[in-house]
Amino acid sequence: MSRKLYYGVAWYPELWEEEALAHDIAWMKEVGINVVRIGEFAWSTMEPSENAIDLTFFVQIIERLHAHGIDTIMCTPTATPPIWLSHGHPERMHVNERGEAMGHGSRQHACTNNGYFRTRSALITKHIAEAVGNLPGLIGWQLDNEFKAHVSECLCESCLSLWHNWLEDRYGRIERLNENWGTAIWSQRYESFEQVPQPGLAPFLHNASLKTMYQLFSMEKIAEFAGEQAAMIRSYSAAPITHNSSIAFHVDNEKLFQGLDFASYDTYASASNYAAYLINCDLWRTVKRGTPFWIMETSPSFSGSLESCSVPHPGGYVRAEAVAAYALGAEGFCYWHWRQHRTGCEQPHGSVLSAWGKPTIGFKNVLEASLAKEELEPLLLATVPMQAEAAMTYSDRAKAFFRTEPLRKLNYRGLVTEYYSRLLEMGIHRELIMEGAELRGYKLLLTPFLPSISPVFLERALAFVRNGGIWIAGPLTGGRTEEHTIHTNEALGQLEKLAGVETVYTYPIDGTGTVGQAFGLSASLGMWSAVFEPREPGAKSIGKIRNGGVAAGLSFITERAIGKGKLVLLGSMPVGEDGDAMLKRLFAYYAGEAGLKLRTDATSGTIVAPRQGDGYTLWVIVNMDGAGGSVTLPQEGTDALTQARLAAGQLTVGSYEYRIIRFAGDGCEPR
Amino acid sequence: MSRKLYYGVAWYPELWEEEALAHDIAWMKEVGINVVRIGEFAWSTMEPSENAIDLTFFVQIIERLHAHGIDTIMCTPTATPPIWLSHGHPERMHVNERGEAMGHGSRQHACTNNGYFRTRSALITKHIAEAVGNLPGLIGWQLDNEFKAHVSECLCESCLSLWHNWLEDRYGRIERLNENWGTAIWSQRYESFEQVPQPGLAPFLHNASLKTMYQLFSMEKIAEFAGEQAAMIRSYSAAPITHNSSIAFHVDNEKLFQGLDFASYDTYASASNYAAYLINCDLWRTVKRGTPFWIMETSPSFSGSLESCSVPHPGGYVRAEAVAAYALGAEGFCYWHWRQHRTGCEQPHGSVLSAWGKPTIGFKNVLEASLAKEELEPLLLATVPMQAEAAMTYSDRAKAFFRTEPLRKLNYRGLVTEYYSRLLEMGIHRELIMEGAELRGYKLLLTPFLPSISPVFLERALAFVRNGGIWIAGPLTGGRTEEHTIHTNEALGQLEKLAGVETVYTYPIDGTGTVGQAFGLSASLGMWSAVFEPREPGAKSIGKIRNGGVAAGLSFITERAIGKGKLVLLGSMPVGEDGDAMLKRLFAYYAGEAGLKLRTDATSGTIVAPRQGDGYTLWVIVNMDGAGGSVTLPQEGTDALTQARLAAGQLTVGSYEYRIIRFAGDGCEPR
Amino acid sequence: MSRKLYYGVAWYPELWEEEALAHDIAWMKEVGINVVRIGEFAWSTMEPSENAIDLTFFVQIIERLHAHGIDTIMCTPTATPPIWLSHGHPERMHVNERGEAMGHGSRQHACTNNGYFRTRSALITKHIAEAVGNLPGLIGWQLDNEFKAHVSECLCESCLSLWHNWLEDRYGRIERLNENWGTAIWSQRYESFEQVPQPGLAPFLHNASLKTMYQLFSMEKIAEFAGEQAAMIRSYSAAPITHNSSIAFHVDNEKLFQGLDFASYDTYASASNYAAYLINCDLWRTVKRGTPFWIMETSPSFSGSLESCSVPHPGGYVRAEAVAAYALGAEGFCYWHWRQHRTGCEQPHGSVLSAWGKPTIGFKNVLEASLAKEELEPLLLATVPMQAEAAMTYSDRAKAFFRTEPLRKLNYRGLVTEYYSRLLEMGIHRELIMEGAELRGYKLLLTPFLPSISPVFLERALAFVRNGGIWIAGPLTGGRTEEHTIHTNEALGQLEKLAGVETVYTYPIDGTGTVGQAFGLSASLGMWSAVFEPREPGAKSIGKIRNGGVAAGLSFITERAIGKGKLVLLGSMPVGEDGDAMLKRLFAYYAGEAGLKLRTDATSGTIVAPRQGDGYTLWVIVNMDGAGGSVTLPQEGTDALTQARLAAGQLTVGSYEYRIIRFAGDGCEPR
Repeated sequence: MSRKLYYGVAWYPELWEEEALAHDIAWMKEVGINVVRIGEFAWSTMEPSENAIDLTFFVQIIERLHAHGIDTIMCTPTATPPIWLSHGHPERMHVNERGEAMGHGSRQHACTNNGYFRTRSALITKHIAEAVGNLPGLIGWQLDNEFKAHVSECLCESCLSLWHNWLEDRYGRIERLNENWGTAIWSQRYESFEQVPQPGLAPFLHNASLKTMYQLFSMEKIAEFAGEQAAMIRSYSAAPITHNSSIAFHVDNEKLFQGLDFASYDTYASASNYAAYLINCDLWRTVKRGTPFWIMETSPSFSGSLESCSVPHPGGYVRAEAVAAYALGAEGFCYWHWRQHRTGCEQPHGSVLSAWGKPTIGFKNVLEASLAKEELEPLLLATVPMQAEAAMTYSDRAKAFFRTEPLRKLNYRGLVTEYYSRLLEMGIHRELIMEGAELRGYKLLLTPFLPSISPVFLERALAFVRNGGIWIAGPLTGGRTEEHTIHTNEALGQLEKLAGVETVYTYPIDGTGTVGQAFGLSASLGMWSAVFEPREPGAKSIGKIRNGGVAAGLSFITERAIGKGKLVLLGSMPVGEDGDAMLKRLFAYYAGEAGLKLRTDATSGTIVAPRQGDGYTLWVIVNMDGAGGSVTLPQEGTDALTQARLAAGQLTVGSYEYRIIRFAGDGCEPR
Repeated sequence: MSRKLYYGVAWYPELWEEEALAHDIAWMKEVGINVVRIGEFAWSTMEPSENAIDLTFFVQIIERLHAHGIDTIMCTPTATPPIWLSHGHPERMHVNERGEAMGHGSRQHACTNNGYFRTRSALITKHIAEAVGNLPGLIGWQLDNEFKAHVSECLCESCLSLWHNWLEDRYGRIERLNENWGTAIWSQRYESFEQVPQPGLAPFLHNASLKTMYQLFSMEKIAEFAGEQAAMIRSYSAAPITHNSSIAFHVDNEKLFQGLDFASYDTYASASNYAAYLINCDLWRTVKRGTPFWIMETSPSFSGSLESCSVPHPGGYVRAEAVAAYALGAEGFCYWHWRQHRTGCEQPHGSVLSAWGKPTIGFKNVLEASLAKEELEPLLLATVPMQAEAAMTYSDRAKAFFRTEPLRKLNYRGLVTEYYSRLLEMGIHRELIMEGAELRGYKLLLTPFLPSISPVFLERALAFVRNGGIWIAGPLTGGRTEEHTIHTNEALGQLEKLAGVETVYTYPIDGTGTVGQAFGLSASLGMWSAVFEPREPGAKSIGKIRNGGVAAGLSFITERAIGKGKLVLLGSMPVGEDGDAMLKRLFAYYAGEAGLKLRTDATSGTIVAPRQGDGYTLWVIVNMDGAGGSVTLPQEGTDALTQARLAAGQLTVGSYEYRIIRFAGDGCEPR
Repeated sequence: MSRKLYYGVAWYPELWEEEALAHDIAWMKEVGINVVRIGEFAWSTMEPSENAIDLTFFVQIIERLHAHGIDTIMCTPTATPPIWLSHGHPERMHVNERGEAMGHGSRQHACTNNGYFRTRSALITKHIAEAVGNLPGLIGWQLDNEFKAHVSECLCESCLSLWHNWLEDRYGRIERLNENWGTAIWSQRYESFEQVPQPGLAPFLHNASLKTMYQLFSMEKIAEFAGEQAAMIRSYSAAPITHNSSIAFHVDNEKLFQGLDFASYDTYASASNYAAYLINCDLWRTVKRGTPFWIMETSPSFSGSLESCSVPHPGGYVRAEAVAAYALGAEGFCYWHWRQHRTGCEQPHGSVLSAWGKPTIGFKNVLEASLAKEELEPLLLATVPMQAEAAMTYSDRAKAFFRTEPLRKLNYRGLVTEYYSRLLEMGIHRELIMEGAELRGYKLLLTPFLPSISPVFLERALAFVRNGGIWIAGPLTGGRTEEHTIHTNEALGQLEKLAGVETVYTYPIDGTGTVGQAFGLSASLGMWSAVFEPREPGAKSIGKIRNGGVAAGLSFITERAIGKGKLVLLGSMPVGEDGDAMLKRLFAYYAGEAGLKLRTDATSGTIVAPRQGDGYTLWVIVNMDGAGGSVTLPQEGTDALTQARLAAGQLTVGSYEYRIIRFAGDGCEPR
């Protein structure tokens, strides 16, 4: 439980004169800002020429903020190495998949695996940690900025060499790599690790294993860099460390945050796609369990750059975002950024104050959200988000598999968000969990879009099922080995065996006009599909293909009782409006089977974040779509803000309105 | 006439363990496979390190297949040189039009004109030919795989030097090149052959002659490579040699197959575009006259790669494909591929068995087609495809001209296929013939989309006309010289003179709202057009422009009687539904004039392949669109499978059904 | 006032044999051609090998033309350096933004800043000027061809070095650059000028200042090259010098033409976009005041290249173009080109004669336009275009700002053309003027899309207002400094202060559903917007936001009386049909306020070009859209061609028809 809620902004004091700084701090106080994030890109200010490191300015800023009651999150500036590191050194720069080296002047232009970059990053971080690591007001650290947001894998010579080492560590002998990747195909076979290329230009596609492994290598290396940086900071500072990450970047967030202390992320989802905003809350809450997460960046109104600008958020939406985030477990909610950039490529980006120090179009949003936060703070600090009963697997490793194998332009993030949005609409309190997460406390586990299931995951999921859990696996789950190859004993490997079925066919079902039937509903089926025949005792068909030529009569949904629970296979994706209804019916059915209680009855666009107090339940209700709606109160409750008594039954919620309802006891009955 | 029909698959035994091989061969027998194609990409298996060549495995495979009654087509593996050839040798690799060298790990990454590549290719092919060239069961050879499928012209240094030699051979003196290409334009003029660039990066378009000649150079060189490889094989083996080509690749199939022994090709057309499937049968039948062709690759259900997948064929369609192919002259019909790849980038591609050795969604298709082939075999072996009376010119050289000069994104293959599809729909038995093909036996010659007409072609076509043939030339025919320049005496050069007309204007007619009238029909005109005024005796207008400003009253179709025949000029493309009707009316009119008899009356989507027996005619009727239809039997016949008597008149054909009808005598009367 | 009107063609005699040349000259006479443009790309003809310069051919051509009564404009051939300059010298070639050097064979392949290129360009130009500079018949010079049409900024090593010098000249000390560009952002900071990169490859966007300054540098350098070339010519020839430029190219036309003697340009606008044709006449008339402009290239019917072709102009349209151009101030009207190219990449381009020397589809157009020119010549030579009362600012510098900062793909040329088209439709006689143009004679100044207002411009515009002018600034005007950064005192800098308002917010208003009200009309607002609150005495709101959340009640149009005139701010763009109406109402309102008299009442698609004679007015009326229309004659007049009396009131104009009306006195009353 937090001591307080943080309400923050990113600030770049090194870009402004003293007059602006005084003005800024005064206005921050006015608006209720209690934390700022600084230093992110300031390497050239800190070390204008090589080794001329001076951190006095930032020390003074932190002390000055502290004097005004504002805490600081200090950033390392490694996303933007100075010109003395990059000029004349193309070998230190990021190299794209065409083999082209980046130039100076943007971000992430250096290769984070370059030895000299690592040395200089360690040094500047050491100096920063020494200088500010124990200042009063310093409450945390952020490493770098948005790792791999602008770039994906680097193909420089440093990376080539590290790639060979990584492969040798993984495979030991080149023959093992050849066997695992099946390099006899197309005479790809390597005689030594030194010959294995990076996935650069080729006439046609590279081997799937090469493409996926290079992504895993790259993601491990950036986590390694983060770990090195964190270790350096920890030598000088006890403040917790995070990184402003995202599920949009080319990182393995699970690996990355293993070496960090708390979770944080950036999000710029549009108001019309609020599910893409909320999925973050339900994911990042679980990344570092027991430690609240932060929204490190979001826009006070709109985002923008020289080459784009988004639609400003409607009035009320930013407050709804803040309330939802805090209610779903956020400790910090921060804007990017405080004062509009005077120069550079993000001049058009939304901010709290303009470059001339006046309130922007987003200012009122920021003020409203601040007041809401003040109002909610005591209620939230006295409660914690309820643990969800339903968990959905999230995997950046799976994302890498889909990047290697998008088939018809499948996009992992989009697939996962759409799948998640159905749980959201159904009012099922849910969590997204990383592949390595423990399953204790859950009753229902959903694992869509996980091409490769690791033995560890399978074992854990199986134990979960044996103990009474229901695991819904699929679609597009289990069909690939960990080396991104095809199983050779059955289509879905060990998962298929456990499910007690035989996968009769796997094929791209789109365009074949195939219709599936399940739960009394019919729907067209889509995506690359696996269709089954139950084979083992206890396995049975739940959904069958009605037509579809040779596949007619085969199953696309099966279940099998295992121990006290069930393993459900979803082999295909019901699509369209009917498919949506079928999928929800499936979720509802197994939510019932699993005995889920944490499910609320709200109209679409309105969410409930249930929180547990000492002997009572708090519902934070927020309308996210601006259309207003209603929620069914399962029992009599109290408006926690006005103390008014509320009868059980329908409660109306206005456009972007939030309500806090207190119930005695558990309060959340399934409808 | 074939001894038998072949039904085959591509197989990669080098990728699997013994258990899988035994399983595979047993199932092949079960399914009726009587030929397999092996070795295609196996260079690294054959020669894992430089000079360590061992072909024992493939010898044993061929012997083993033979022992099971399965014949073999052996492939050379030169599409995928091993890592010892490519690693550290960017100068041996294919270079794209941006000047970027390809890396190892895909296919066609080496430059086929690189000297070392040629040397090593010759050596491995020599060893293979020596080792397997006389094994029983070896019935043929396939060179490489799909030349120039993934790449087009290479721009490496080796090619640059060969290009200069090629130019010197062609032009002798640089001044002749300068004159022919008109390089005084834009000061392109070269002082020596060494200065002539490859068509790489430039601020705007290159000279048309340069672009087209570089394509011709590239196509000649790949034919030269094929010729060298074939010669090497012939030193050791008498089995006939082919290549699995396509009209989609960057090759000159006419030149390529001059050095080979039989024609074969790959096709993955979708069921909804069955004309794109059938055009191959009607083309490849004529490429090596007197020798039946092979479909070397087609999908048992769907194609796929990491980044794409097609729609599975509807049930019954693959059988229809096989029946149509055999009936139209195929000796072999082969699938790609037998067993799903476990690794690499084509894991999602359809196959007969899955990677775990079970029947796939396409298996039933393969079985049905096998039964049909068994049923048809005696009937087809006793007959031969009737020679068509209508021939349509096909030219990969023309394709190169259109790639240089696409105007508004004109695509030669698409243009030709759409033009062809009208003959198909009209039931005109037809053949596509290469530019150099003899015209004996034809009554009607259609030559659309041939920008440059060679003197040899013109002379042959003229003789054909003099002897009574009707030649319909155009649209987009004759307007360029062989050097890809404009004629300077008249728009269409010698063709125009022969046609006895004057081309008054050539211009892009689309968007001008011009309407043409011919055969009592009106239709909008499209494409780059030539409009005429008859000038010489015997020349007359057949179609005129109704409006169109200055072009009103001019002709877009003319004809001229020459000797016993006629030369028809089609200067513009009638477009839309009305244009389609006009074009068919034109074809029907001249089919009548030419006295075509081989025309059948079938509903759209159903085709008839007429074959000649000893004193009788066989019609193989196939429904290709799944909608079923009917065919008018011109006289009483017999169902060749059931021996039932069939009256003249309408015969109904079910969805994807085939029927074999035997008629006494000639049997095909024009309706 | 011109001695005569010129009617010309581009001609490439170096590409043809003597027979063609004689034929060409005879036909030119026939058609009324009285000037030809030669030599444009003929460097390799003039200097086939290095230093072997021979200009005899061109001397003879000019003399021969002169003997036939045809004048010549001689071109320098520097757009196409010969192979001896480019071969083996990638360092002399243009380098694109990916760092790739261009090859020989197209145009503009050399870097115009390369030292050797400059040397050789100076030399060949010197020789040409010496040889032909004083020949009778030589009436003018054209430098190079379409500077920067195919390429934008060059990123070669020569340019890098010159860029550093340019920056040093501009900023003196690197710290000044750092401050002005705000390079503390993202640690871009440079320690010396040598470190400042060109805007090449980077992971994300470059600094706005870097991108814009590099464009200004490039545009200054090409103007410098033009200046050097002009100086060389002037040493040998008194004939005036121009360049065939365009607002589509990457040049600063204002700077470029400062060093030249008369304005000319190329245009290939389609007939359906005739505003894009006419905007040129209204712009280029003012570029070199007092000197008539030339249309140096336009198509006789259609344009084309190997990869494109346009729709042929409808019959009558080319004549309408010629009449409009001459009436709006053109002295010359020239086609590209006379005879269709036999070779190269522009074979499909429209011309007057075909490659075989016959009239093309455009020939009739050329003949009709020639007759119209003959008919108009005496009338036009006796009059001059009336000076417009309404001026609209045009700035290639602004274009550079938009290229750096397109936000949602804003395109300066498209924005300006659409804005201009409203003045055209409203019959307001108008001129486009460069930023540096004097404002004498104008009553209304429109300055849309000028992100950065220079102090000089502001001062001149302010003086204009004080003297009674009305200045409408915006939208998207004034929001950036000259360094492409944000103002820090207020949103619009000094402009805002003068307008007496406060910009309350700036933000992207699209998608917010915001509606503005002004002049009794309502319209949706779009584009990046600034919304105001009048603050100073005399400032008042003219248009307010009706809804729009926090911006409701703020102004998007304000005006302030300053001296005898007014400064109007337009902060947002009214969009859609309603927005179009509102904008026209705004223009009409301030046209009235400003006392504009030069406004004609014509139906849409018909224009009036008013000209001043000695005591009389001439209206040249042209229907440009082919639909015909009518014009209200404000008073009785005379048909200047037939001498018929015409009553005041409606005069009908046929499709593409032109009429010349003579009025006594001023003649143009506002309706």
